[in-house]
Amino acid sequence: MANSESLSVRVFSLNCWGIRYLSKHCLQRYAMIGEMLSNGEHDIVLLQEVWSEKDYLSLKQKLACCHPHSHYFKSGVIGSGLAIFSKYRIHDTFLYRYSLNGYPYMAHHGDWFGGKAVGMAILSIGSLTANVYVTHLHAEYCRDKDSYLPHRVVQAWELQQFIRHTSAGADVVILGGDLNMHPQDLGNRLLKASTGLRDSYSETRKFDGCEDGISLIADNPFVSKKTLIPFEKGIRIDYILFKGSSKADIYCDFMSTTKGSVPDHPFPYSDHEALTAELRLETHSPAETESDGTSKNQDSAAGKVAELVDIVTEARTEVKVGLHCAERMRYTATRTGVMGLALLILELAIAAVPWLALGAEQPFPRTSFYMLAALCFAILLTTSLLYIFYTMELKSLQGAEDQMRLTVGSLQEKLRGFPLAQPHSTQRRPPEGLEPSAFDPEE
Amino acid sequence: MANSESLSVRVFSLNCWGIRYLSKHCLQRYAMIGEMLSNGEHDIVLLQEVWSEKDYLSLKQKLACCHPHSHYFKSGVIGSGLAIFSKYRIHDTFLYRYSLNGYPYMAHHGDWFGGKAVGMAILSIGSLTANVYVTHLHAEYCRDKDSYLPHRVVQAWELQQFIRHTSAGADVVILGGDLNMHPQDLGNRLLKASTGLRDSYSETRKFDGCEDGISLIADNPFVSKKTLIPFEKGIRIDYILFKGSSKADIYCDFMSTTKGSVPDHPFPYSDHEALTAELRLETHSPAETESDGTSKNQDSAAGKVAELVDIVTEARTEVKVGLHCAERMRYTATRTGVMGLALLILELAIAAVPWLALGAEQPFPRTSFYMLAALCFAILLTTSLLYIFYTMELKSLQGAEDQMRLTVGSLQEKLRGFPLAQPHSTQRRPPEGLEPSAFDPEE
Repeated sequence: MANSESLSVRVFSLNCWGIRYLSKHCLQRYAMIGEMLSNGEHDIVLLQEVWSEKDYLSLKQKLACCHPHSHYFKSGVIGSGLAIFSKYRIHDTFLYRYSLNGYPYMAHHGDWFGGKAVGMAILSIGSLTANVYVTHLHAEYCRDKDSYLPHRVVQAWELQQFIRHTSAGADVVILGGDLNMHPQDLGNRLLKASTGLRDSYSETRKFDGCEDGISLIADNPFVSKKTLIPFEKGIRIDYILFKGSSKADIYCDFMSTTKGSVPDHPFPYSDHEALTAELRLETHSPAETESDGTSKNQDSAAGKVAELVDIVTEARTEVKVGLHCAERMRYTATRTGVMGLALLILELAIAAVPWLALGAEQPFPRTSFYMLAALCFAILLTTSLLYIFYTMELKSLQGAEDQMRLTVGSLQEKLRGFPLAQPHSTQRRPPEGLEPSAFDPEE
Repeated sequence: MANSESLSVRVFSLNCWGIRYLSKHCLQRYAMIGEMLSNGEHDIVLLQEVWSEKDYLSLKQKLACCHPHSHYFKSGVIGSGLAIFSKYRIHDTFLYRYSLNGYPYMAHHGDWFGGKAVGMAILSIGSLTANVYVTHLHAEYCRDKDSYLPHRVVQAWELQQFIRHTSAGADVVILGGDLNMHPQDLGNRLLKASTGLRDSYSETRKFDGCEDGISLIADNPFVSKKTLIPFEKGIRIDYILFKGSSKADIYCDFMSTTKGSVPDHPFPYSDHEALTAELRLETHSPAETESDGTSKNQDSAAGKVAELVDIVTEARTEVKVGLHCAERMRYTATRTGVMGLALLILELAIAAVPWLALGAEQPFPRTSFYMLAALCFAILLTTSLLYIFYTMELKSLQGAEDQMRLTVGSLQEKLRGFPLAQPHSTQRRPPEGLEPSAFDPEE
């Protein structure tokens, strides 16, 4: 390859489980994380669940020498929990808050208060512009009956939109984080098919870490075995994804995960395992890649588009399920509110009758009267807040559904443009040096 | 110009003031707007304050022939109010919700419930890819004492970020909407300096409309004269902005505004005037523009960067003012909440003392007891909600402030890279065919 230049970038990603006072051994674990990172082996560090800004600041201080550039993404009530530390200059950052992120009254799950988001940082790696994304999607608390699935699908949808629309000027795209989705989950397929991002675990030449690349393992003392059922050994929900461009190819030479215990320490870094991917960036002159307009290439592209149509249609169905559910919840809130109002009016009427018959003694027991009135007001207030909240949820779900419909239409039209649109096969890999997403403009 | 191709695109923008049952003559005005647009004179129609989806759907039906492609952006409790109708195919859409948008308890201002946002639609105009943005920023209710200024500055900041980061792949960028900012307002300068967008009113070759391009005029019967003081004739707060790329130049040949009254109708279309800009798109081969690396060009670029540093610094100051204000409000909410809690504990203590002295008569008047308790609970609930809300506001303000600091640092570093950074002059216009933003990567 003439004119090519090779660069190695080590990317690190870890969900730190950093809820002060609630997460076990939080401070000690931060100290361990800081110590491990301060050896300077990693070029880009992507952290999630750094809920307290104080912990970010103390990490920043510790890593000042080896990672002089950093950014903490603020959002929601508590924060987004997202942080990036980098050896490379961070030129610009941008945060996108997901429109849906659980329910405020599910306080014990806490996701809503975290204000989940995707953070972007634009870095210069040598002569290349790299868009680095870090995110953390809504947790899955029960796989069988996952009431948050529509929210997570919408988050995955917005994540792929954000990456696709903001990375047009990037030479390299890297995404790291806790996606809370298994490798074959709908949101994950949606993300990969629409952005063209590749999974460092499946692409790596060498791997050293937990079996099947799992990042939430049963051997970790902080992980409750119950939550993993029926996945005895653990699940893979943390990822480092990447893609190149016409200006640079990107490969994963080596990937590793921590394996629960840490030598010389009594407990692991976090309840999640840390990922490290050693990526190789090869810059080349753009002309090299443009000679590939063969029909084989076109078939592959058509297959990709057809696959994406299927995935987006599946996602749309999931969002519609969420829509029905939110509509039902809003209807229940409305009905309860109306009942509360009716009760209040009834009570006032009963109280008013003897009061209007001037001078008559108030027969209504005062205690019950005030308690009932307070109850009515509480019902009215709660249902009003719920009504507002469900309306916002509905709008976001409808918005995503609309956008998905538009996308399917656009993709189907594109598909008709292919001379011989073949049924899509499962084995499909982009040609070397090109990581096209199915959305790339063809015209 | 060899290989060049010229296209004319007519862009329309109107704040429809479409609050059902509240805005005067809402339905009749929608009928008038539909009738006017259905003559098909406009290629891209950008509407704001279409609060009811029903009105959007009836417009969509009416414009089905001349504008077969459309999208309604959903957000917040009521909606974003943003809609786009187009003659060109809409390939993709994306919505960014501003992180700050007024206060929910300022219900009479209503902005919070609208969920203000910026909508993006990707269109194919001939061989060009156009990113079209429509937005509506927070209203200004009192210019002298504008408590929403930090929110609007953050919205302008996020708007420029969104446009900058999503338009890298676009050949043409068009933004239309009600920015609620005067031409020289901070947010407007921030938007234009950082994106390189040009104002169609200042750039147009021919203009027909209200004096100084004002879009909220005193002659409009729906506009209260009081709100305009001290601007007797009116103010310019609606805009159509645009920029080209290395693939296409863009010019404004003609611009017009409505002038209040509408022939054959008893009232105007809205309380805002409608804008129409006739834009000329000239595609050319990219090679043409790349020969311009002169030192004069560099001076101009350095001046632009220096100007942007000033503007971002000013914006940062404004955001800091907002930060202090939000901190004070949160402190007040906390203090009131603590007082409510103390009162409740005191009351319970007073009530408990005789109750503990077994059998003693309850001396506390029951009515007062329950009313006081209800008051305490109401205080606690309200202050908790306010605390959560102000915390979210603080996070968003801090996030914007952080990003601004990073940007200033990055720009200053860039400035040091210029050989002879000249103090910036006010008269500066990009060379023909180049609409660079100060953020464009130089390396």
